[in-house]
Amino acid sequence: MPYPETSTGYMVHDQKNWTKFTKQEFKLKPFGDNDIDIAIDACGVCGSDVHTIDGGWGDAPMPLCVGHEVIGRAVKVGPSVKTVSVGDRVGVGAQIGADLTCGNCKAHQENYCPSAVDTYGGAYPDGTISQGGYSSHIRAHEYFTFKIPDGLDSELAAPMLCAGITTYSPLKRLGIGPGKKVAVVGIGGLGHFGILFAKALGAEVYALSHSPSKRNDALQLGAKEFVSTREKGWNEPYKFQFDVILNCADATDKFNMGDYFSTIKVNGVFHNCGFPDRPLPQLSAQDFAPNGCYIGANHIGNREEMLEMLEVAAKQKLKPWVETIDISEEGCAQAVQRVYNNDVRYRFTLVGYDKVFGQRA
Amino acid sequence: MPYPETSTGYMVHDQKNWTKFTKQEFKLKPFGDNDIDIAIDACGVCGSDVHTIDGGWGDAPMPLCVGHEVIGRAVKVGPSVKTVSVGDRVGVGAQIGADLTCGNCKAHQENYCPSAVDTYGGAYPDGTISQGGYSSHIRAHEYFTFKIPDGLDSELAAPMLCAGITTYSPLKRLGIGPGKKVAVVGIGGLGHFGILFAKALGAEVYALSHSPSKRNDALQLGAKEFVSTREKGWNEPYKFQFDVILNCADATDKFNMGDYFSTIKVNGVFHNCGFPDRPLPQLSAQDFAPNGCYIGANHIGNREEMLEMLEVAAKQKLKPWVETIDISEEGCAQAVQRVYNNDVRYRFTLVGYDKVFGQRA
Repeated sequence: MPYPETSTGYMVHDQKNWTKFTKQEFKLKPFGDNDIDIAIDACGVCGSDVHTIDGGWGDAPMPLCVGHEVIGRAVKVGPSVKTVSVGDRVGVGAQIGADLTCGNCKAHQENYCPSAVDTYGGAYPDGTISQGGYSSHIRAHEYFTFKIPDGLDSELAAPMLCAGITTYSPLKRLGIGPGKKVAVVGIGGLGHFGILFAKALGAEVYALSHSPSKRNDALQLGAKEFVSTREKGWNEPYKFQFDVILNCADATDKFNMGDYFSTIKVNGVFHNCGFPDRPLPQLSAQDFAPNGCYIGANHIGNREEMLEMLEVAAKQKLKPWVETIDISEEGCAQAVQRVYNNDVRYRFTLVGYDKVFGQRA
Repeated sequence: MPYPETSTGYMVHDQKNWTKFTKQEFKLKPFGDNDIDIAIDACGVCGSDVHTIDGGWGDAPMPLCVGHEVIGRAVKVGPSVKTVSVGDRVGVGAQIGADLTCGNCKAHQENYCPSAVDTYGGAYPDGTISQGGYSSHIRAHEYFTFKIPDGLDSELAAPMLCAGITTYSPLKRLGIGPGKKVAVVGIGGLGHFGILFAKALGAEVYALSHSPSKRNDALQLGAKEFVSTREKGWNEPYKFQFDVILNCADATDKFNMGDYFSTIKVNGVFHNCGFPDRPLPQLSAQDFAPNGCYIGANHIGNREEMLEMLEVAAKQKLKPWVETIDISEEGCAQAVQRVYNNDVRYRFTLVGYDKVFGQRA
């Protein structure tokens, strides 16, 4: 039973064998009036994919097809769809559903809707488990489907749909722009977007990393300075300097938080973009006392921020550093293994979908 | 060697005998051009006093005279003092010094000056250890000396100088006013000020407590609703409701933080006013994901906020709930022991200074 009842994707069956992908069909949710079917051409490989399939974030419904940085062509649009036409190049990020009626949704905070449906591993009201973009097709509500501006390559746009927006949304909400100083901690998949977007928004960017080998990359990406957090006392010259620390590191559990906090301006923010498997270091209320700072995190961003981010990226011709891999059982395995090993500068996009799934009109 | 070289106060000598106060002289810092000598008439008894003398916050220089909610009369003013005249009724809070030249001080964030001097147990540049208001006199820089508006009783004004400002400053900085919903957690010395000031600023106030016996007090203080956090599921009706949680509880280490966070609006704040001896519960970045909230704390407030708070309190005829105790070795002991036991509704002010120290022109 092929599309349109099903999609075909590369699925993981067992968190203990999380690099074993099997190509197989899975059921799509019933087509709704606001739905769009997308023939997928590219999909970013996100740290979330790895945290989900390897069990770092706990159980997940199996078998599962991950991938939530999806780019493709609209091949079918529901009768109520207003924002997308058949043939449009569109993207889907990490969220594919929400009730769109609750207080948060009405306030354009649908990324905090308590009934949000994740792009993969989420449950639709009818019980269908959502499946991601390592696959031939995805069926998405138009509210979570974004037209991709011309001039933005698909393999570069893909990772913006989760990693990009995860850094862009907090930067916007925290008022980052000209005259602001942002420290981006952890120069990996998220952090490289943190530098790109903080710079694109006009801020002065400081790249903080415990890997001195990242210095050249950080400067090339647009950082004004590279700060090696491996040296004791690294924080001394930066006391009370940063409006925002955008923490994109996975090893936050090993941080001396006092060192980081000491570099934040009065009432500034230590903002976490990633969700590591391990908790934050133990904190006391006193730890915030020297500057009245805050710590928090975000969950992706909303539709307006997504569209704005794509516009900013297209206009400024932003160039994320992306390596492409042809999608296949081996390609998926290689990509998630290398993301797990932190062996990518700085994102993978799976491409070559026509070769395994055909052209899909 | 009496005043003006010394002051006489009730001092603790040993954190193991923290309820044993001895009346004795101690040296004052050298008098500076901007200094004011104050003959003390009243001093609030703060939770900080107890955390300091009982060792909950670690070592402290001994012997120590605590008390940082000081009200008295200016009896001597330095030649450069512009804001206070001899005879004025003035107050001193928890901070008595700062360099007044650093970036934070220049930005009117002197409460976050890295060279701040605490009102007691702090070290002045000349090595003098600052001593607090359980004493006959205090010598304070005019920047940290505040005229008390007429119509505000000294015993009511005293506890505002630490407990009051500690709640007022974050409420102001977090934009609390009409149309905002504030949850005040922990109806004790700090929390009762949290309710009073959140209400005075025009917010709708919800009092959260694990002691149902606090219900009537909270409503009388101005809360719109009392929420007993002892009942399982207490948070359900309040999901995404509060702009700010002002946490004034001491037992935060026992909180289920997810329950509290769930009641905060998108991008809202869980703000800690107190500094308990024990750390916060372990947190993960994920805990902030459902609403993109933040957690932090403040350290008292700045001069502008202090003057504004006193003005608000005088204009609105705010009535903190204060019990007075005559100062003496026994009076000090009784006050700190009862604060330790949480046996006060809701603040103590030490009074009757003339009886033990004379009139002090």
